[in-house]
Amino acid sequence: MSPVNDFEERAAQLLDEAVHGYFAGGAGDEITLRDNVESWRRLVLAPRVLVGVEERDSSVTLLGRRRPHPFLVAPMAYQRSAHPDAEIGTATAAAATGATYVLSSQTTTDPREVARAMGDADRWLQLYVFKDRAVTDDLVQAAREGGYEALVITVDFPTGGRRERDERSRHVLEHPTYVQLTQGPVTPAERHAMHDPSLTWDDVAAIGEASGLPLVLKGILDPGDAERAVDAGVAGLIVSNHGGRQLDTVLSGADALGPVAEAVDGRIDVLVDGGIRRGWDAAKALALGADAVLVGRPVLWGLVCEGTAGAQQVIQQLVDELDNALALLGCPRAADLDARFLTRRR
Amino acid sequence: MSPVNDFEERAAQLLDEAVHGYFAGGAGDEITLRDNVESWRRLVLAPRVLVGVEERDSSVTLLGRRRPHPFLVAPMAYQRSAHPDAEIGTATAAAATGATYVLSSQTTTDPREVARAMGDADRWLQLYVFKDRAVTDDLVQAAREGGYEALVITVDFPTGGRRERDERSRHVLEHPTYVQLTQGPVTPAERHAMHDPSLTWDDVAAIGEASGLPLVLKGILDPGDAERAVDAGVAGLIVSNHGGRQLDTVLSGADALGPVAEAVDGRIDVLVDGGIRRGWDAAKALALGADAVLVGRPVLWGLVCEGTAGAQQVIQQLVDELDNALALLGCPRAADLDARFLTRRR
Amino acid sequence: MSPVNDFEERAAQLLDEAVHGYFAGGAGDEITLRDNVESWRRLVLAPRVLVGVEERDSSVTLLGRRRPHPFLVAPMAYQRSAHPDAEIGTATAAAATGATYVLSSQTTTDPREVARAMGDADRWLQLYVFKDRAVTDDLVQAAREGGYEALVITVDFPTGGRRERDERSRHVLEHPTYVQLTQGPVTPAERHAMHDPSLTWDDVAAIGEASGLPLVLKGILDPGDAERAVDAGVAGLIVSNHGGRQLDTVLSGADALGPVAEAVDGRIDVLVDGGIRRGWDAAKALALGADAVLVGRPVLWGLVCEGTAGAQQVIQQLVDELDNALALLGCPRAADLDARFLTRRR
Amino acid sequence: MSPVNDFEERAAQLLDEAVHGYFAGGAGDEITLRDNVESWRRLVLAPRVLVGVEERDSSVTLLGRRRPHPFLVAPMAYQRSAHPDAEIGTATAAAATGATYVLSSQTTTDPREVARAMGDADRWLQLYVFKDRAVTDDLVQAAREGGYEALVITVDFPTGGRRERDERSRHVLEHPTYVQLTQGPVTPAERHAMHDPSLTWDDVAAIGEASGLPLVLKGILDPGDAERAVDAGVAGLIVSNHGGRQLDTVLSGADALGPVAEAVDGRIDVLVDGGIRRGWDAAKALALGADAVLVGRPVLWGLVCEGTAGAQQVIQQLVDELDNALALLGCPRAADLDARFLTRRR
Ligand SMILES: Cc1cc2nc3c(=O)[nH]c(=O)nc-3n(C[C@H](O)[C@H](O)[C@H](O)COP(=O)(O)O)c2cc1C
Ligand SMILES: Cc1cc2nc3c(=O)[nH]c(=O)nc-3n(C[C@H](O)[C@H](O)[C@H](O)COP(=O)(O)O)c2cc1C
Ligand SMILES: Cc1cc2nc3c(=O)[nH]c(=O)nc-3n(C[C@H](O)[C@H](O)[C@H](O)COP(=O)(O)O)c2cc1C
Ligand SMILES: Cc1cc2nc3c(=O)[nH]c(=O)nc-3n(C[C@H](O)[C@H](O)[C@H](O)COP(=O)(O)O)c2cc1C
Repeated sequence: MSPVNDFEERAAQLLDEAVHGYFAGGAGDEITLRDNVESWRRLVLAPRVLVGVEERDSSVTLLGRRRPHPFLVAPMAYQRSAHPDAEIGTATAAAATGATYVLSSQTTTDPREVARAMGDADRWLQLYVFKDRAVTDDLVQAAREGGYEALVITVDFPTGGRRERDERSRHVLEHPTYVQLTQGPVTPAERHAMHDPSLTWDDVAAIGEASGLPLVLKGILDPGDAERAVDAGVAGLIVSNHGGRQLDTVLSGADALGPVAEAVDGRIDVLVDGGIRRGWDAAKALALGADAVLVGRPVLWGLVCEGTAGAQQVIQQLVDELDNALALLGCPRAADLDARFLTRRR
Repeated sequence: MSPVNDFEERAAQLLDEAVHGYFAGGAGDEITLRDNVESWRRLVLAPRVLVGVEERDSSVTLLGRRRPHPFLVAPMAYQRSAHPDAEIGTATAAAATGATYVLSSQTTTDPREVARAMGDADRWLQLYVFKDRAVTDDLVQAAREGGYEALVITVDFPTGGRRERDERSRHVLEHPTYVQLTQGPVTPAERHAMHDPSLTWDDVAAIGEASGLPLVLKGILDPGDAERAVDAGVAGLIVSNHGGRQLDTVLSGADALGPVAEAVDGRIDVLVDGGIRRGWDAAKALALGADAVLVGRPVLWGLVCEGTAGAQQVIQQLVDELDNALALLGCPRAADLDARFLTRRR
Repeated sequence: MSPVNDFEERAAQLLDEAVHGYFAGGAGDEITLRDNVESWRRLVLAPRVLVGVEERDSSVTLLGRRRPHPFLVAPMAYQRSAHPDAEIGTATAAAATGATYVLSSQTTTDPREVARAMGDADRWLQLYVFKDRAVTDDLVQAAREGGYEALVITVDFPTGGRRERDERSRHVLEHPTYVQLTQGPVTPAERHAMHDPSLTWDDVAAIGEASGLPLVLKGILDPGDAERAVDAGVAGLIVSNHGGRQLDTVLSGADALGPVAEAVDGRIDVLVDGGIRRGWDAAKALALGADAVLVGRPVLWGLVCEGTAGAQQVIQQLVDELDNALALLGCPRAADLDARFLTRRR
Repeated sequence: MSPVNDFEERAAQLLDEAVHGYFAGGAGDEITLRDNVESWRRLVLAPRVLVGVEERDSSVTLLGRRRPHPFLVAPMAYQRSAHPDAEIGTATAAAATGATYVLSSQTTTDPREVARAMGDADRWLQLYVFKDRAVTDDLVQAAREGGYEALVITVDFPTGGRRERDERSRHVLEHPTYVQLTQGPVTPAERHAMHDPSLTWDDVAAIGEASGLPLVLKGILDPGDAERAVDAGVAGLIVSNHGGRQLDTVLSGADALGPVAEAVDGRIDVLVDGGIRRGWDAAKALALGADAVLVGRPVLWGLVCEGTAGAQQVIQQLVDELDNALALLGCPRAADLDARFLTRRR
């Protein structure tokens, strides 16, 4: 297991600096990037004892379906730049460990191919709404053909964030993505210009109706927006600041989660991501009211270092750590986690 | 864009240590100097989504005039020691980017010359009230002749602060300033001794009447003083601790702003400066009730490294970052920013 | 005395890295491990003066017996890996300094032998409840034969924590323990698998009745669990997170103590451990409502560096520091310490 | 002036390590030693403007006498180990700068000699109450003969603190002190053993009556003790933790001051020491209710580096900084400082 904790460091050495900067980096001074990790760490757990924990159950219900544990793989673009196993690597790693897989709109592998490799394992497709709606429609079509269970519409990307590592490295991602909108390699600026900044709640509703698939909105931080999401009839939302890659110094998911979950009050599913690095971070998310969590970069570092097997080790470690946390918290069922298991430093 | 973020570091290498110390330094242990930057960073943004942000409007109204964005260049002395482009460099950079320029009383270029180089771009003149009032009167005269729109009276300089970098370097600024009060190079002590410590609210009123120009008071931190400024009939005030250069361990502008804006309650314009380093810092200032912000050292570092062009890049980056922040905050109009877009860590 | 403060550092050099990792390490990112020490440090003492402190009395009453001071040696496994003096070393060090000794279930010396070496000095036996109850029963039998005054049932170990130093070093402890459950050296996983995760409050009650010895529950952090402990009829409880070795990011003992002591309200004895490094940490614990404290690693570092004599120096220093603290706090009797002697930073 | 700020660093190089450790060190982990400095730094000043500050007045009234500014030199033992100028150096430096001098009981110069060197400048004598009262009586006698205005009875030294630098260096102070209680050099333990731990409020009253001199109690941190001091009829008290040299992790003077001043409510003089390093620290102390402040180590570092002249530079810098702070705070009279000039970070 120790290799897992070294993946991040090893990946920094293995990757070309510009590519590493694209994967690891965040917006501005990367204050939110760091705070994402810190804000889980500073939440304090309050364990109970002697409740009998020989049988643990990490399972959660998500979009009406039981899942073995609350971990999803977050959608991440350009995985071929990480390792030749690319999206098929992370997808099959997810399948092998029971994690729901979320394929990025900026996949470097055809969504149908990814689907085939996954068999009947759980998968969702993340949707960017591009200015060129035909491209978005084609992705929805691929989602349907590939048996993707839900569409994750990312709503925190009306335009790209100010990622200075990319600006310094003048990073041009060389692997073509499935949505081949431009010819040849694209600069960050070109990539960001594809996104439609005029997107509103009405568009979301329209996409939902047209696709016939359940929608999950990714990138909500405000309780009022969460209310609006419930009203818009989506099936779930993801509390997220896009891994610190959009606007620097915004609230972390960990800090935004409580008020959002309270506003939603169980009417739709609430997920969270950003900075989840340990199984017990997931326990804290559930205690704060989340139904599940997405994990981004750690899975990527596993992929960079050891391909599919590395990604799988990372997810398995998180699953094992959560199981361990349930035992040591004296809360053998993940679904029973609540605010009583959190406390504060004095 | 990356060069912009390296300007500070590069300037430290380019400049003579004593000159760099004069520009970069603050009073005492430089606690306030550092806190100025930190206090913007620790404010947390709370974004909204799906509001349609294809058109953004960074404009603000200041002294009754619409400006394209809320950035002003702060008055900074002795710019010829930074680069031969000197005040004309920063002034034309401001003009090119739509920033209102504030010329220092300690300009090393004649205010009329600066005015000529700026065409009809927005400019204010900062006024130190010297013991020798003839010198101050001459500056007011130059302001009128140079078409300066307002006088910024700096009220936090009854005497100089304890700047230890200058004391260590025994820094003597060699370029003569327009207000040639002494012969030859002046020591910090000589420079500070020019200021009139007996200045009161009555003097401010008298200067306002005599000049016929709108007044902006620079250096207010206390809500009671803000009330007094309103009563004194000035057009605006600048919440400022003089870039941490006067009294160490005073409140930062970011922390003083809220209560001051509340006390003023829209009756006059409220600006703020000190530690603004990112476009989103300006968004936070507006959310706290400011109408505009002044940027000091970053513009200077641009000037040191690349003259006029460097100064211009810095301002442009701030403008671009604010535009980006408006999109990602889900608040397309800067004028709509308010407390709802700020939140707290847990 | 100075050597004592260097023991920790010297032990890190003397020990094989894997063994040192086992002794020094904690779970996960070792956040709780560090917080244990920090949380005592951040408690602020409020001294009184001129009360006459020529005679100090550090004594406390524990399980109905007067003890010369509130320090116990915490149960720690595998002491033979630290030094050939092993458990007899720490036990005789405790006896020599008046500290109550708690022998670990994972002792590498027969409990009866330890008892013989201690004469009639105070000793308790720590009990892990293993899946194989015969092993546990045999320990209880040894406790009775060895004249151990009480059984300390550790309730925070339904399964092992995620200790990454051990996982990295693949540490296999080579010295056989008294409870020879497996043949030959055991891996951390094998060791942890011995523990019975199904343990509940009912088992505790049963063990208490069967043994006829007073019980102390080790590993309580929650005030509700403390109430349950009182109801279960035990004689005392130890507020502990197992030295940060079980679940990372849980509450420290120092932070958990106040609410637990309040819930117990004097009905049974309350002890605390984790991060106690100074005599005045014990004063803080008593001021927060504890009756006594356990000290773990410091005693071990003394043992590693100088065997029995080193362990004894460590305990003696803590005793001396507490005596000094009583004088300087203006509270000559340890039993009189209460919340008035604690305050807060502004 | 810059040399002043380097004195601390330079002194560390000039002095023998053991002697430096004795002067610089604190008790235990030196948490309080560091917090003393930090707690002044974290207090935030709130300046006012335009009040007319051409004339400043730093004077304060202490024991009924007007003094030019609020700085006293704290009593510090063994000054001959710092520099041959010894107590006469610091005393004449105080006299030259208008600071009231407090001579330590552990002076290495006869109090009458110090008095002669000071002319009619303000001086107090600090009194340790030793087990051997004849020694204390002799000091009181010397105080009377030397024209010392008041006795400062140090009440936070019933026994010595745990100073580990001294324990490590086995520091033996070689210069004989005036109170030649032992023959030849004394160890820390011997020195500390001289003090009478049985001292109570009654003894203080008795000493006051016998001496006929006004008493100031040094080492009060608790508001209740401050009440008792008022009741005991002393003329003043010093909020102090003995420069972090007695019990580690106690409250800093800066944090204790407010509640103590409130309890005293002007009935007797309140002074404070510990960590005062800047003139504006004194402004904060006055704003919190102190009448004056004592400065310890900085004066010592000046003495070490440049003898009398160095000590004088240090005091003068503090006086100048306070004058500067009064101007920049918009509070030209030190006596007018109050809570309105302090605020908090957000
Ligand atoms: C390299 C990279 C690419 C990403 N690409 C996408 C994407 O295409 N679509 C999307 O919605 N989020 C994307 N994200 C954001 C992630 O889905 C997720 O919100 C974030 O990474 C979670 O934070 P973590 O990396 O700290 O776990 C990306 C993140 C990274 C690091
Ligand atoms: C080198 C330098 C010179 C300055 N000169 C003046 C001046 O002549 N008049 C004035 O009102 N403020 C002066 N200031 C203060 C600035 O106007 C402004 O308040 C401050 O620099 C803002 O903080 P920032 O540098 O962190 O952006 C000066 C600041 C610097 C750094
Ligand atoms: C190396 C080591 C072995 C330990 N073994 C046991 C044990 O066998 N049984 C037990 O109840 N606690 C055990 N503990 C936990 C200690 O009893 C105690 O709770 C903890 O060490 C206190 O924290 P401290 O080391 O910071 O003082 C062990 C701790 C260490 C460091
Ligand atoms: C080297 C040294 C010797 C001291 N000796 C005495 C003393 O003899 N009597 C006394 O009351 N305080 C003594 N003190 C404490 C000081 O009077 C004062 O309380 C403390 O130094 C103030 O803190 P500062 O050094 O941070 O300014 C001594 C302090 C130091 C550093």
